[in-house]
Amino acid sequence: MRIALDAMGSDNAPATEVAGALRACRDGDCEVLLVGDEQRLDAELGNKPGRDKVRIVHATQAITMDDSPTLALRQKKDASLLVGLRLVKNGEADAFVSAGNTGAVMMGARAVLRPIQGVSRSAIAQTLPTRQGRKLILDLGANVDCTAAQLCDFAEMGMLYAELILGIERPRVGLLNIGEELTKGTEVERAVHQKLRAAENINFVGNVEPRMFYRGEVDVTVCDGFVGNIVLKTSEAAGQYVAWLIRQELKSTWASTIGALFCLRAFKRVRRVVDPNEVSGAPLLGVNGTVIILHGSCNAKGVANAIRGAALTERSRIHEHIRRGIAELRAVKVESGNGA
Amino acid sequence: MRIALDAMGSDNAPATEVAGALRACRDGDCEVLLVGDEQRLDAELGNKPGRDKVRIVHATQAITMDDSPTLALRQKKDASLLVGLRLVKNGEADAFVSAGNTGAVMMGARAVLRPIQGVSRSAIAQTLPTRQGRKLILDLGANVDCTAAQLCDFAEMGMLYAELILGIERPRVGLLNIGEELTKGTEVERAVHQKLRAAENINFVGNVEPRMFYRGEVDVTVCDGFVGNIVLKTSEAAGQYVAWLIRQELKSTWASTIGALFCLRAFKRVRRVVDPNEVSGAPLLGVNGTVIILHGSCNAKGVANAIRGAALTERSRIHEHIRRGIAELRAVKVESGNGA
Repeated sequence: MRIALDAMGSDNAPATEVAGALRACRDGDCEVLLVGDEQRLDAELGNKPGRDKVRIVHATQAITMDDSPTLALRQKKDASLLVGLRLVKNGEADAFVSAGNTGAVMMGARAVLRPIQGVSRSAIAQTLPTRQGRKLILDLGANVDCTAAQLCDFAEMGMLYAELILGIERPRVGLLNIGEELTKGTEVERAVHQKLRAAENINFVGNVEPRMFYRGEVDVTVCDGFVGNIVLKTSEAAGQYVAWLIRQELKSTWASTIGALFCLRAFKRVRRVVDPNEVSGAPLLGVNGTVIILHGSCNAKGVANAIRGAALTERSRIHEHIRRGIAELRAVKVESGNGA
Repeated sequence: MRIALDAMGSDNAPATEVAGALRACRDGDCEVLLVGDEQRLDAELGNKPGRDKVRIVHATQAITMDDSPTLALRQKKDASLLVGLRLVKNGEADAFVSAGNTGAVMMGARAVLRPIQGVSRSAIAQTLPTRQGRKLILDLGANVDCTAAQLCDFAEMGMLYAELILGIERPRVGLLNIGEELTKGTEVERAVHQKLRAAENINFVGNVEPRMFYRGEVDVTVCDGFVGNIVLKTSEAAGQYVAWLIRQELKSTWASTIGALFCLRAFKRVRRVVDPNEVSGAPLLGVNGTVIILHGSCNAKGVANAIRGAALTERSRIHEHIRRGIAELRAVKVESGNGA
């Protein structure tokens, strides 16, 4: 499996990407195509172990977090992000991983790999830990403004993902909202609720509040990218705050400091469950190819896990499953439309 | 201080409200006017301690969580919520507390107590715990759809609240967003960012991600009610999930189970910091009077704390401070507008 990695994406690029690539190559059987400034990458790679499984693909430009995605994609034709996506397009790589400007990755992927027919927007999906194991939520930031129809597309893609990758039969699909009642949310949420309720092929369980999500009462949770991104970041921030608070309180007395020593392994296991770098990145659903998006603040472990995740995702051929699934769902719609 | 309490609002009404009212009266010097079905309230009160400081005000109707606020306010003229607000309007009570339908409380308060001049929407404000003490965030659910101008009103009200109630000079005001860059967010966030940056009287520090909020890097965080409500509920849900996860892991070995016993007091202190029932409810800012909103799932301790909070809030005359402050800010705007 050959994974193209945008080496110029993360906050600490290319050091993080290089370290992550080497780590993934040492442990796994994949080859990494590191896309970025050849000289910098070569210097960073040096003769470190795993070097032989990493190949550099030169790109003269890089898209930054401050760049406007639309402008950057037009003006920086040789950006690492676009070069990497083209490797996938041309069959020189099997999947693409980037921790760069999310909007640019999303738009670039649609431009280079093309959208799946019937899906008007792509969505970033990711599983988060809940009391019933990891559950899927999408979109996590690809689209800040969504129409009801687009959110319904996300529901369908999320359902297909949960079936194939999470192995759930008839996944329960919910709509993230501020209350369970029909009347809650903006006009968009109310319209999505109606549409999903009417959709025969979707096991729609209604509105989902964050509490229900974390109890694992639903397999796929749908929201727009602004709200999804806020949920993701609030979860991380609130979790980190609670962990910090516990540390402060445990340090405040002798008894609890000693007690905490007996709990260190347990705390370490908790950290592993909630650490976003333990997860294999977030797939961009809705394009013809495997694209994995990472947070800009990821570390080398996060990059290595995303490379492994990209290999697994590509092996599952999720994009083909989604393409077929969407086509079937649309065919049913047209049929029942004709019958009406 | 006489506090009017909507006795028919919470998920477990009126039992929770009655227990909370008695608790507040036993410990404090306030009188509670319990508004709701006289017979049920009398039965619930019985001869419990504190009974003498509670007075029942009869209301024949109640607005439920499923009711449409607009319709309910029109059709249920004798709802406990409206009767309670009228007590404040007529000077028979000093402040109003409700755990009922948030939309109905907000709209009812505006209809009965009237909006503060210059503020087009009211907002629910609340402090959440951060690494630097409690920080204010608004709106938490009064308005699901907001214009840029309305969010700027929230920024001004939040600033005035932080000055008077939190005692912060020149509070740092931030806009909740999915990134620090100017270009982040929807059209509304981008417009608010521009407006707040241009506002001379506001100490605007830019976009705020949830991580920055929880580190306490900002005193007042502004967002629309949909996003704010999601942040509040995600914080609670993620915090509860992490606490559950820690409990599971601590129970998994003997060493950690024993260690945890030494940490019980520390864990209890943590729980107190994050328990929403330890806080004194959320004030509705932007109306001429003190209105405190509680979550429907609150318990008796939460109600008692909200009653005490209502007394403190009313004593601070925050609504007068906001009225004066907004008038001054508007005057400056008009002046500089004339000068241009």
